Amino acid sequence: MATDSSIMDANSFKSGDINSLDPLTRKLVERREQVLGASYRLFYRKPVNLVRGEGEYLWDAFGNKYLDMYNNIPSIGHSNSVVAEAVYDQMKKINTHTRYLHENIIAYSEELLELMPREIDRIMYMCSGSEANDLALRMCMNYTGGTGILISREAYHGNTSLVSAISPSLGGAQELLEGVRLVPTPDFYRSGKTEEEFTAWYCAEIQKAIDDMNAHGIKLACFIADSIFSSDGVHPNPKGFLKAAIDVVRKNGGLFIADEVQPGFCRTGETFWGFARHGIVPDLVTMGKPMANGIPCSALAGKSDILAAFSSKFPYFNTFAGNPVSMAAARAVLKFIKDNEILTHTNEVGSKLLASLKDVQSRHPDKVGDVRGSGLFIGFELVSDPEKKTPDKESTLALIDKLYDRKILSSNCGTYGNVLKIRPPLVFKAEDIEWACSALDESLSELEK
Amino acid sequence: MATDSSIMDANSFKSGDINSLDPLTRKLVERREQVLGASYRLFYRKPVNLVRGEGEYLWDAFGNKYLDMYNNIPSIGHSNSVVAEAVYDQMKKINTHTRYLHENIIAYSEELLELMPREIDRIMYMCSGSEANDLALRMCMNYTGGTGILISREAYHGNTSLVSAISPSLGGAQELLEGVRLVPTPDFYRSGKTEEEFTAWYCAEIQKAIDDMNAHGIKLACFIADSIFSSDGVHPNPKGFLKAAIDVVRKNGGLFIADEVQPGFCRTGETFWGFARHGIVPDLVTMGKPMANGIPCSALAGKSDILAAFSSKFPYFNTFAGNPVSMAAARAVLKFIKDNEILTHTNEVGSKLLASLKDVQSRHPDKVGDVRGSGLFIGFELVSDPEKKTPDKESTLALIDKLYDRKILSSNCGTYGNVLKIRPPLVFKAEDIEWACSALDESLSELEK
Repeated sequence: MATDSSIMDANSFKSGDINSLDPLTRKLVERREQVLGASYRLFYRKPVNLVRGEGEYLWDAFGNKYLDMYNNIPSIGHSNSVVAEAVYDQMKKINTHTRYLHENIIAYSEELLELMPREIDRIMYMCSGSEANDLALRMCMNYTGGTGILISREAYHGNTSLVSAISPSLGGAQELLEGVRLVPTPDFYRSGKTEEEFTAWYCAEIQKAIDDMNAHGIKLACFIADSIFSSDGVHPNPKGFLKAAIDVVRKNGGLFIADEVQPGFCRTGETFWGFARHGIVPDLVTMGKPMANGIPCSALAGKSDILAAFSSKFPYFNTFAGNPVSMAAARAVLKFIKDNEILTHTNEVGSKLLASLKDVQSRHPDKVGDVRGSGLFIGFELVSDPEKKTPDKESTLALIDKLYDRKILSSNCGTYGNVLKIRPPLVFKAEDIEWACSALDESLSELEK
Repeated sequence: MATDSSIMDANSFKSGDINSLDPLTRKLVERREQVLGASYRLFYRKPVNLVRGEGEYLWDAFGNKYLDMYNNIPSIGHSNSVVAEAVYDQMKKINTHTRYLHENIIAYSEELLELMPREIDRIMYMCSGSEANDLALRMCMNYTGGTGILISREAYHGNTSLVSAISPSLGGAQELLEGVRLVPTPDFYRSGKTEEEFTAWYCAEIQKAIDDMNAHGIKLACFIADSIFSSDGVHPNPKGFLKAAIDVVRKNGGLFIADEVQPGFCRTGETFWGFARHGIVPDLVTMGKPMANGIPCSALAGKSDILAAFSSKFPYFNTFAGNPVSMAAARAVLKFIKDNEILTHTNEVGSKLLASLKDVQSRHPDKVGDVRGSGLFIGFELVSDPEKKTPDKESTLALIDKLYDRKILSSNCGTYGNVLKIRPPLVFKAEDIEWACSALDESLSELEK
């Protein structure tokens, strides 16, 4: 799942800067601060008021056009008309809940499960990725009888009480569950290891964490991870290392929850699901963000026995989830993905973008330490010393600002906050690469001055 | 918040009855069971496939017309065209998240806070009532430093891990939080007390629960309740008894969360919010269901210092929440409520319906023990012995079936499952009363045979 929580105070507006804003933006910010709770943050020193979107482009209230290199919810394009029409049509007919029969939830579930490994044979719906992870975690604890949960060092899995407590990226004030053990960030770039060594090291770290659980009398329930380690800084490689780690988890009696909120729905290019790229069959799969292109919709798919073991004890009903309108939106997204061969497109354009970003790196070898990614999820890592691989968060934040000046929307992530997160809508086109990469080139040159 | 969880196995389809279904319904049920997790339930012995809705009416796939006396989400009418147009218009422009500026969330927040007591001055958005209650609870615990939580005996506050643990109506397998203490159902009908005596008794019960917390070294955090005690069986009276109870909570250092997911947005007729009917100013207010007429949207409004104390420690971001499309839907709902004077309408038609239901009661004095309600939230309680007030769940379930045969949608609730829950969309009209009450009359007569 997405978060910029750990770096929220970095790439964000600070109230003290209000006088630097133009009158229109200033007025909006002031009105907003008068009514919204203090938790709300705004991206950028000078927040942006986006009023229109189309495909991978956005426009602010002044008519400025932006290239969206950040947003993964409008995955099949901002204001996608296919989704808008589907929602409008269904809203004019009926919108109810899952205690009445309706074709949409059945048809969508059939279509989605077709895309899953055979073992994943049942699905449930929620409204947010947080709700899906919350339920998935409870199901794993119920099924295994354990409370031990493995998570990645900088994990973010949502905002409910339970999943906040498995989200160390929320910061030090957020207590983790007693049964949680952290697994190190799979930072292949910094590891200095071969692929085989790296995989063996990661597996050993998993076993070490489980051994520590056992030593404390805690029984392993599950490992939950998104297969691209988004908040850890985008770590897709070496392909397959996660499969070996899951084997260790299973050998120790644990389950695997694939948090596909970010990598799912073609994002990583090679496969429809991020876990499939690693050759994994999860026990439970959670999904959300791009699922209905912005209409709130999430889901938990899994092995029927795990779901049934939970429901035999606990009722579960989610008012809005799986309603005919959300399902109409989700079906439209899936149809668009198929009709427009979004998976192939993502793989192709993602490879071209990655190659161009590596070209940019080659022109700025002292600043850009690593460029890595899969499909249209790419991490572009800034360092102050390429030999020592010293993370350079300051330059990364400055780079985001300079890209923003060039009307490119991006943000950062990672343990050190020094990874530029490049994650455009999947309708991003090859001809957009020029805008993105020349802006990066110019911005990096300015930073080197 | 709504639940029929505790009585889920009552008014619901059982797989064993599949052969009694017509071929079309049977096929849908079979397909559904092949893909959805085992938690899903369907209303009625013979589940209904609703394909169209308009106002308070619904139509199934066979063209049968139903009067909706149950659904509180499509509060301003099924398929309300004002909401559909607002959503469609916004979807064609842009849908993003709260880290960019957008007019919709600001304007809606201003409009909504106008309807709140002055002390409630900030708002945050979520996707479901569960998420709102989950966050509200954490805020209260953070603000007070306590973990003691008072809830009503049959409370339901949602489906996350945390709020499930303050929802005894989920059944015995659901463990409650250690700090939870149950307050008895405010069953005025069975109390045999005057209004004054009843209020004093309820206050004493609150104090007793707090004393028990203290005796166990638990500090009081809050009382959370919906002001009409929906899952306890609809208990609106005596008006004001809850105010006295909240005074006791405050005297003991606790906060009050008004769960307005059900009573909010004019439902209880006299006032826009259910808490206002009791003359209460809450510390936090959660809301959801009818807020955007079915587009997933919920919120937490509250005193700014409680919200700020939380956000100073914990980041909070909710991907879909408060997005321009949800906010467009919510604004359309609020405008419709104002333009069509829904509050006045609910009060008037609710009073007429209540009077007609009391007429029905007078014709069936041996079966109907009590009829009570506020606005369009009415409990119609069946007893086997009106003197002893013996709850009659069996007759209530039979009544729901008989009403369903007469194309009236309803369900039951309450500690004993013997309260017919009458809660139609607020656009319910005076001329619908005849259909509803004659169906009730006939059904009760059949039951008396």
